[in-house]
Amino acid sequence: MKEVNVAIIGFGTVGSGTAQVMYEQAERIRKRSGININLRKVADIAVDSLPAHLSNVELTRDAGELFNDQEIDIIVELIGGTTLAKTFILQAMEHGKHVVTANKALLSEHGREIFAAAAANEVEIGFEASVGGGIPLIKSLKEGLVANKIMSIMGIMNGTANYILTRMTDHGVNFTEVLKDAQEKGFAEADPTYDIEGIDTAHKLVILMTMAYGMNIGLDDVAIEGISRIQPVDIDFAGDFGYRIKLLAISRNYGDHVEARVHPTMVPESHMLAGINGAYNGVHFTGDMVEDVLLYGLGAGKMPTGSAVVADIVDIARNINYGCLNRVPCLSYLPEHISPRQITPMAELRCPYYFRISTLDKPGVLSTISGILGRHGISLESVIQKGREQQGTVPIIMRTYEAREDAVQDALAEINALPTTTAETVMIRILADNEE
Amino acid sequence: MKEVNVAIIGFGTVGSGTAQVMYEQAERIRKRSGININLRKVADIAVDSLPAHLSNVELTRDAGELFNDQEIDIIVELIGGTTLAKTFILQAMEHGKHVVTANKALLSEHGREIFAAAAANEVEIGFEASVGGGIPLIKSLKEGLVANKIMSIMGIMNGTANYILTRMTDHGVNFTEVLKDAQEKGFAEADPTYDIEGIDTAHKLVILMTMAYGMNIGLDDVAIEGISRIQPVDIDFAGDFGYRIKLLAISRNYGDHVEARVHPTMVPESHMLAGINGAYNGVHFTGDMVEDVLLYGLGAGKMPTGSAVVADIVDIARNINYGCLNRVPCLSYLPEHISPRQITPMAELRCPYYFRISTLDKPGVLSTISGILGRHGISLESVIQKGREQQGTVPIIMRTYEAREDAVQDALAEINALPTTTAETVMIRILADNEE
Repeated sequence: MKEVNVAIIGFGTVGSGTAQVMYEQAERIRKRSGININLRKVADIAVDSLPAHLSNVELTRDAGELFNDQEIDIIVELIGGTTLAKTFILQAMEHGKHVVTANKALLSEHGREIFAAAAANEVEIGFEASVGGGIPLIKSLKEGLVANKIMSIMGIMNGTANYILTRMTDHGVNFTEVLKDAQEKGFAEADPTYDIEGIDTAHKLVILMTMAYGMNIGLDDVAIEGISRIQPVDIDFAGDFGYRIKLLAISRNYGDHVEARVHPTMVPESHMLAGINGAYNGVHFTGDMVEDVLLYGLGAGKMPTGSAVVADIVDIARNINYGCLNRVPCLSYLPEHISPRQITPMAELRCPYYFRISTLDKPGVLSTISGILGRHGISLESVIQKGREQQGTVPIIMRTYEAREDAVQDALAEINALPTTTAETVMIRILADNEE
Repeated sequence: MKEVNVAIIGFGTVGSGTAQVMYEQAERIRKRSGININLRKVADIAVDSLPAHLSNVELTRDAGELFNDQEIDIIVELIGGTTLAKTFILQAMEHGKHVVTANKALLSEHGREIFAAAAANEVEIGFEASVGGGIPLIKSLKEGLVANKIMSIMGIMNGTANYILTRMTDHGVNFTEVLKDAQEKGFAEADPTYDIEGIDTAHKLVILMTMAYGMNIGLDDVAIEGISRIQPVDIDFAGDFGYRIKLLAISRNYGDHVEARVHPTMVPESHMLAGINGAYNGVHFTGDMVEDVLLYGLGAGKMPTGSAVVADIVDIARNINYGCLNRVPCLSYLPEHISPRQITPMAELRCPYYFRISTLDKPGVLSTISGILGRHGISLESVIQKGREQQGTVPIIMRTYEAREDAVQDALAEINALPTTTAETVMIRILADNEE
């Protein structure tokens, strides 16, 4: 039976999960592929010993040992970050090793260099685990939906942010309180910036857009807003209007230009994405042939992410076994068909909007605000002034018809500058019913 | 550039959709695979001419012409049915042609013979389109979830049945009325038996179980109940209890034995499957490593199904191009690891149940019924006697705690035989909260 040998760099949560999946599923993988996939070495500078079931695996502190080992076919990078991880991956490729990684930050920030190195060294790179944990998203985009122009991507792709929004929705507690609780329970990092400010979601959107459209895109191309401004009052009003607030990555494909944005979004309750709660992730694609497809599952976690890493390992092992390397191009399109694409400026976005304006409770305020919105061509679907003032301030809640982002930004700047406005207006974009 | 040539047998809805997807996506497929995939011939006995955009495609009435054409690599069977389709597929394989089909009835009833023929002739068979239309279910099971023991499958896999149940739920109309409306609109066949009686769903469950577990199973192994007994009153009570009624295919994997059943099920509103409405399909898998994964999309239709057929064609074309045929075994496990498995008898099923008992409004009836249930060890969570009698009959609605199916069947036989019982009791199984 064919043997394929694997080494892992980084024995943290996902690294140890990957080793465990390989161990527990070894027989199943043999029965499915006819290949013995062996974990030979693990490199980690902070681990002193491996679990008992990995007794035949060699532990080293020196990743360099893996690159020079002629027996190793595939190197799995699971240390994260964008510096050492990059060096290791490039070195592995130079030594002719295939690479599997879950590193979304690295791929979205330095993808071009890494994919070029893979091509130059004629090795494969698998990164299913970089988006949506164990959900087979990348494979579905590359193969299952191969005969589709992807028209849109909409995804909940950060479990921490989704957990926080779900807790706020279900229990009416505020952001700071939920975050603290999530940190105590280990659901949020000590520094949660990447998760709650939408950066992690943007990393993943960059990867999905690359695969879906066959384009070059970097993190700088994505417009990003996080969820820290959201208050329970916004969630309540969203509920009254029939929406759930989700941190969405959204991209629509207009052919020569494409959207790339991450922001809190009011999603109609009837939409499948509205029902994705807690630490779950889900991505909704529309293809010109297949129409709607949604894939859902756990977006993180030791074993789910390990499941995706091992799926990539098996995929590459099959290609080694059958001598069909790069049977499916790593970026889903052949390198010569990957090209840059214009990013639609946020200013040109059109959608309905929700505003929560904090203002002094004085006569004429509503008329002044309505006047500003009217001058910018923004029509209101509903206005609610609910509850009495607190410390002289009342919230005015507005829902607009479809409006243009630049008009909204200009109008909100004027409203925020009014002497009667007591805090920055909270603006949340609304996903129109039946929008894709 | 490598050329791969394709012929289609059957130019109905899916056949013409497949041809259209191939035509519209030809350039994209070239950019993704480096292969020219050409539709060369179409065989259909009822079609006189092909659409203008297929001017370079030859139309024939004789499928035999395709088998003997040395240039054809892949034959796509889209005539449906289990007689002629079977003959054509076996003949195509004997002539060394790879086969793609969407024929779930054929595969679930004669799969063993067809898969054996594929192995004997060393050809591939693709059947992504046989389950869940354009949703990449089969590929996800075979490859994305390769490192998982699949612990359960739960799916809404018939768009017609789901459309009918959704209309009944949203509009409170009865089954017969919705069915008539669906037939007029073309959403239901003139003979809807396969769809509404759960047979089509069972066909698909057989295919998924084969792929998920690596087992031999036939249609006869599946316990099947349809949706024609469901009344708006049952849907209303389900809603009161926090459930939606769905026609589910369910299989749990207990290792040496597995469940295989299709029946109307009360699904908790918080479950992702409860939110799948209209003609949409969705399948929820649990894997021992990945935990929950759900895939959702249109389960039928010309272009979505065409998208899945063409994904299979591209997959096989890549294998032809790279000389790596059967890189992934067609049944997901290698043939020597496919084995029969015990099917759990329905009698051993344990779940909560819903009963709607039609009875004369006489004193002592409820006590008699409760006595019967008690004697069979069935405990009640709630009893509702709602509304006044109609023609002397009142419905008694009961929800049980977890009970055993054989006890329930025995108790219902006794209840149905009571002189006070005026119609057969409607029983619907309940999916427990958080059940997988």
